[in-house]
Amino acid sequence: MSNPTGSEPDGNAAYGHTTFKRSRSHFADRITADGRDGWPVEAGRYRLVVSRACPWASRALVSRRLLGLEDALSLAVADPIQDDRSWRFTLDEGGRDPVLGIAYLSEAYDARERGYPGGVSVPAIVDVPSGKLVTNDFQRITLDFATEWTALHRSGAPDLYPERLRDEIDEVMDGIYRDVNNGVYRAGFATEQDEYEAAYRAVFRRLDLVSERLADRRYLVGDTLTEADIRLFTTLVRFDAVYHGHFKCNRSKLTEDPVLWAYARDLFQTPGFGDTVDFDHIKQHYYRVHTGINPTGIVPLGPDLSGWGTPHRREQLGGRPFGDGTPPEPSPSGRTRV
Amino acid sequence: MSNPTGSEPDGNAAYGHTTFKRSRSHFADRITADGRDGWPVEAGRYRLVVSRACPWASRALVSRRLLGLEDALSLAVADPIQDDRSWRFTLDEGGRDPVLGIAYLSEAYDARERGYPGGVSVPAIVDVPSGKLVTNDFQRITLDFATEWTALHRSGAPDLYPERLRDEIDEVMDGIYRDVNNGVYRAGFATEQDEYEAAYRAVFRRLDLVSERLADRRYLVGDTLTEADIRLFTTLVRFDAVYHGHFKCNRSKLTEDPVLWAYARDLFQTPGFGDTVDFDHIKQHYYRVHTGINPTGIVPLGPDLSGWGTPHRREQLGGRPFGDGTPPEPSPSGRTRV
Repeated sequence: MSNPTGSEPDGNAAYGHTTFKRSRSHFADRITADGRDGWPVEAGRYRLVVSRACPWASRALVSRRLLGLEDALSLAVADPIQDDRSWRFTLDEGGRDPVLGIAYLSEAYDARERGYPGGVSVPAIVDVPSGKLVTNDFQRITLDFATEWTALHRSGAPDLYPERLRDEIDEVMDGIYRDVNNGVYRAGFATEQDEYEAAYRAVFRRLDLVSERLADRRYLVGDTLTEADIRLFTTLVRFDAVYHGHFKCNRSKLTEDPVLWAYARDLFQTPGFGDTVDFDHIKQHYYRVHTGINPTGIVPLGPDLSGWGTPHRREQLGGRPFGDGTPPEPSPSGRTRV
Repeated sequence: MSNPTGSEPDGNAAYGHTTFKRSRSHFADRITADGRDGWPVEAGRYRLVVSRACPWASRALVSRRLLGLEDALSLAVADPIQDDRSWRFTLDEGGRDPVLGIAYLSEAYDARERGYPGGVSVPAIVDVPSGKLVTNDFQRITLDFATEWTALHRSGAPDLYPERLRDEIDEVMDGIYRDVNNGVYRAGFATEQDEYEAAYRAVFRRLDLVSERLADRRYLVGDTLTEADIRLFTTLVRFDAVYHGHFKCNRSKLTEDPVLWAYARDLFQTPGFGDTVDFDHIKQHYYRVHTGINPTGIVPLGPDLSGWGTPHRREQLGGRPFGDGTPPEPSPSGRTRV
């Protein structure tokens, strides 16, 4: 959940308190096959709101592509730069999302709970008919895509959260979440040296473990792509562009770890991953929104990104990316505009 | 000249004005063999004041070592963190330089010119008997070490500014100064995106040219070490530690350019270069003093510096590092405490 502006909980935690703590999602209703929370899976009913800058929202972008949910679940992309009212639809004509008709994502939050004092975060799923936010539960949304939205999956969709591997997937994701996905934020938003150093050490200790794990296996769990790979990918793809310099996770670049760099390129070049990435949105967001750590708002021109398309040779490790399924069609609208 | 605190000219230029401009040295008297400015070369008379953080001062550290001037010209090392009165001797017992007896370098400036309104910068050379600053002319000091202090050079000292190569050395140094030595500051202290981008492009355009030049020759000019190598070295050795992240010169790390990285390691491993470097002073200074670009004052733990000692294989290019001379003795007091 990305809501790091000063007026919001994460932002306050980041800049005002001693230790960065990520807020729990307040709106945790689930959209399920049986509709038990009042929100049944239904084609065309919901709208996914993301920022392409945000690693948490980007999980949903990748998952939606891999599972072929594009037609069933439409997409709203927020401006990478929030203002004091948070995520906004200034990239759309007239500054309003064409389906929801709103200028700010907060309007969907208000429609759900008037005067909700918490932060406005992405990913968010909005019920189109009522305009109400259904969920901003970034840890749950993609798991439900994989397990509850199955009736709407494309044919050949992979099983991203296979039942027999869930314990292992959960365990792997748990360590990666704490030390890496969220760890880079703890490093970057630290206000005390010792807090930063602890986070930095955890980031690289975990990345070293993950690198060792991936040295002789193509994916994190089993021999196919799973949710665990999606969650690691959305952090790795941002590593050199923002976490290395802006968040001071600078022991080494991703490109300096031969295993992780090949793994990340392998995913990037798999349909559904790289075609969701917009490096410009990523850099604009981090460097211009976090004025507490980059007061000038200057956005670096680097790093050189041309390596992302180079051969990774991870096929040699075997693995069956989509299991018994098939890759999604290449993105119709270009690499970074899915 | 390093004087980037907010109360000083460079600092004001960096944070208040549109374009970063390095101040000219105000005190440009020369210490010469014939003493024409009133300051004759004399063993034991002067004290060199540096910060090990500062690339301009570090030129003098390297040059003094290569020429063997340690006994003739004593050394004061300032705390890498200036306070509002600038460079200070808080690393020394009682917070005073034991030879000059002063707590702040500014006292030597005051002794020279009461009420001088400009910045206090290093390198500075102070006349010990009078306590007066003689020069802070960072562009001239090392040239005079090479050409005016010859009577006090060690036997076997190299000729760092050979007469027949001066035009070429000057030309090479001029481009490197503008685009690289000072260019990284223009990038880092930019307050406007276009100003930053112009500086960034110049940095890497020049580094690419220099890399090409050094691909098949061991040193920048001729086949021996010269002043030009010293000046390039003091920027390269800081590149990944501070300029890459803190100053946003992040197209690529020094370690990613095989030629420049081998060249920099070659110099680092040559007696008189690496033994003057203190990476801790460098990082503490840049990250804690420049609050305008790093308001949290957090000092990154990275980068991993272990590569500096690895083989560079530049001997294969030939070259005679010290010409007809010899290397200086290894530093008696360890690598980073010369």
